[in-house]
Amino acid sequence: MRILGIDPGLRRTGFGVVDVQGMHLQYITSGTIVIPADQPLAQRLKVILDNLREIVRDTEPTVSALEKVFVNANPMSTLLLGQARGAALCAMADSQLLVHEYTALQIKKAVVGNGHAAKEQVQKMVQHLLKLDGLPAADSADALACAICHAHAGPLAQRLKLSGELAGQRGNRLRGGRLIG
Amino acid sequence: MRILGIDPGLRRTGFGVVDVQGMHLQYITSGTIVIPADQPLAQRLKVILDNLREIVRDTEPTVSALEKVFVNANPMSTLLLGQARGAALCAMADSQLLVHEYTALQIKKAVVGNGHAAKEQVQKMVQHLLKLDGLPAADSADALACAICHAHAGPLAQRLKLSGELAGQRGNRLRGGRLIG
Repeated sequence: MRILGIDPGLRRTGFGVVDVQGMHLQYITSGTIVIPADQPLAQRLKVILDNLREIVRDTEPTVSALEKVFVNANPMSTLLLGQARGAALCAMADSQLLVHEYTALQIKKAVVGNGHAAKEQVQKMVQHLLKLDGLPAADSADALACAICHAHAGPLAQRLKLSGELAGQRGNRLRGGRLIG
Repeated sequence: MRILGIDPGLRRTGFGVVDVQGMHLQYITSGTIVIPADQPLAQRLKVILDNLREIVRDTEPTVSALEKVFVNANPMSTLLLGQARGAALCAMADSQLLVHEYTALQIKKAVVGNGHAAKEQVQKMVQHLLKLDGLPAADSADALACAICHAHAGPLAQRLKLSGELAGQRGNRLRGGRLIG
């Protein structure tokens, strides 16, 4: 399974691609789409749409994972973020890629083991789990974390849960939400 | 000039196509894209994306006009609407169609002459201005109103305004915001 994680935003959209084989996570690529602020809204959304479609063409993921949006106190920010999210979802749908969504809480729990972990902790755990040489940039780290979350929440987690249930116990490793690393 | 007006929404997205020749408005087509509620978000956005791209291919508009979103008191509604709007904007950008945006106030002023007109008044004026046999459905009417607003706010309005200024007076017809009908 190859997972494309996306952290959508109208200024910067992070992406990260991770392979999962059994318990093993393999880093493929990641980066940040920087959206020019001086262009009309439709053009800015097209930058997200085009780049994500290209990333799907280039990396051929089997599934995608998006962070569920934190509904901002500022309605205008929520609206802008919603539009960026709409563009990212359109790119996935256009590429016939299934989308799974996770809250920030779920992602942090899956990656750090603590739903209220700081941004830096997420970056460090992503670096550790994917055996990266350096600390990933914030947007890339969030996207990679989202992909890792899906790796944990997907068939792997189900299998572990199932085996725990079959053995009459829930695996300890599931409790913290972090399964690998 | 052929204008595609769009009233985006995640349940129903209205569209309407209007030709403008000088002072004359000509109704081309309109309708509502009904989005199945039981599908995942990405699929619902794809329904908007695909249908609007198809409408552009079929009707070949030269420009598009969208209603600027009323930022809802409910942040979740704002987010959902933002995503629908993102899909509509992606469809326009994907079709290389320029997007103009107008607030509900501007649209109502342009069509009814009153920024706080009721929905029914907008429907009636749209029917009147476009010489439709029956009252257009609410979503179609909003989309057509948006297209009419752009027809008024575009080169036509500028020309009228200019001639008014050249003659040392502002055209009466401009004051109310409604130019035709």
